Amino acid sequence: MSNIKEIVIKSGKIAKERYFESFNFSSKQKFDLVSEVDLVIEKMIINELKEGYPQYGIFSEESGEILGDTEFKWILDPIDGTTNFIFGIPFFCISLCLEQKGNIIESYIYNPISDEFFYSKDSDKKSYLNDKEIHVSKTNNIENALVSFGFSANYKNINIYYSNWADIFNNCKKGLGVLSPALNICNVARGRIDCFIDFGSSMEGHAGASLILKNAGGLILNYDLTPWDYRTKGIIATNDMLLSSIVRLKR
Amino acid sequence: MSNIKEIVIKSGKIAKERYFESFNFSSKQKFDLVSEVDLVIEKMIINELKEGYPQYGIFSEESGEILGDTEFKWILDPIDGTTNFIFGIPFFCISLCLEQKGNIIESYIYNPISDEFFYSKDSDKKSYLNDKEIHVSKTNNIENALVSFGFSANYKNINIYYSNWADIFNNCKKGLGVLSPALNICNVARGRIDCFIDFGSSMEGHAGASLILKNAGGLILNYDLTPWDYRTKGIIATNDMLLSSIVRLKR
Repeated sequence: MSNIKEIVIKSGKIAKERYFESFNFSSKQKFDLVSEVDLVIEKMIINELKEGYPQYGIFSEESGEILGDTEFKWILDPIDGTTNFIFGIPFFCISLCLEQKGNIIESYIYNPISDEFFYSKDSDKKSYLNDKEIHVSKTNNIENALVSFGFSANYKNINIYYSNWADIFNNCKKGLGVLSPALNICNVARGRIDCFIDFGSSMEGHAGASLILKNAGGLILNYDLTPWDYRTKGIIATNDMLLSSIVRLKR
Repeated sequence: MSNIKEIVIKSGKIAKERYFESFNFSSKQKFDLVSEVDLVIEKMIINELKEGYPQYGIFSEESGEILGDTEFKWILDPIDGTTNFIFGIPFFCISLCLEQKGNIIESYIYNPISDEFFYSKDSDKKSYLNDKEIHVSKTNNIENALVSFGFSANYKNINIYYSNWADIFNNCKKGLGVLSPALNICNVARGRIDCFIDFGSSMEGHAGASLILKNAGGLILNYDLTPWDYRTKGIIATNDMLLSSIVRLKR
């Protein structure tokens, strides 16, 4: 684990440096810059993984599937939360996890700006933030729940969320639209928020965090309420006491 | 300035420590904790200001108006972005500025997690982020603009924004709903985003950042398109080349 942790933290340093560069050019150039940072980090991590784990497969956003051992595969999101990165909101992360025969068995998620490192290993049944064990909240009703949805200022998407979850919008203690599935799921895992709902999260963005949540006592479903499969788009991630209310409230 | 900067950074250390505490209790207790942090920082800064500037007045959210010299008044927001603080999103700040006869003449804004310190002095006509001069972007059309709106997952409020700004929602390059007016305005000032629109921002939250934006080349109006008065609720903050388009697009 320490080896992988070092790789992730090293790549975080690159992300941090680039994040603090002057960003004063056109929005197209800003998106290009973030794509470039994405690629630089992806290349760096893939090179390290190829060296340290030559047999393992790798799946990453830009490079797609790199074939290897059919049993083990790394799943990488070099920057989850690129829009936050561009907007100057320090809520993005590097997400790396290891899949074995369809199960996530190790996860590493790192926000290089706040220096928060989340880690979990399936065999431990525990999750950690900066080496301290974390647990989901005990909130057991929507009226007291803090809820994140994966929406930006996209009115069409907001209305999809609202049509599905009006009862949560209208009755929860506080709701926010926040990008970066991985960090939102980790915030459920550490009890900071009670629920995260996203219909568009990708495998690279949510696979690693889903293990961290599971081993912190949380529960997960696919967005359509079917049993959790990290290869599916979208997620409903909550503490264990809130899931039944949430399932009941979906329209 | 160095003295005030030190006070703000010292208070930021308190905010940072408290932010990283375990937050694993009920949402009511989380809101109470943040109110407590708010008060601790407010008290600390007010005590320092009373000692260093015994004649000046002070205005702060919790304490309200503390009378002093009628010419000079400090305006303090101990934590702008409390909801982000609670949700585990490191996008909040301490905002302190000095008003002289209805003008903001010095501003200090600090995000203690990303360690970003914004500063401006009216007589300099310059604004700084961590001692480097900053400028607004040169984006001159909505199609290329990155825009933040001050909404959470409050459907009623989202619809007010949409009814006023549908053309921006539908045509901008990317839009986000993001809390913390002070940091959003600073992100316009440093060219990270092109525009910030909020109908509910308070004097304490936006007064300091408005000077930083002005001295970085930006323009500001009240939300109802009347000339800027920081004592008014709400703000439209943009670079200088985008304001006319934005005014034209308001419904």
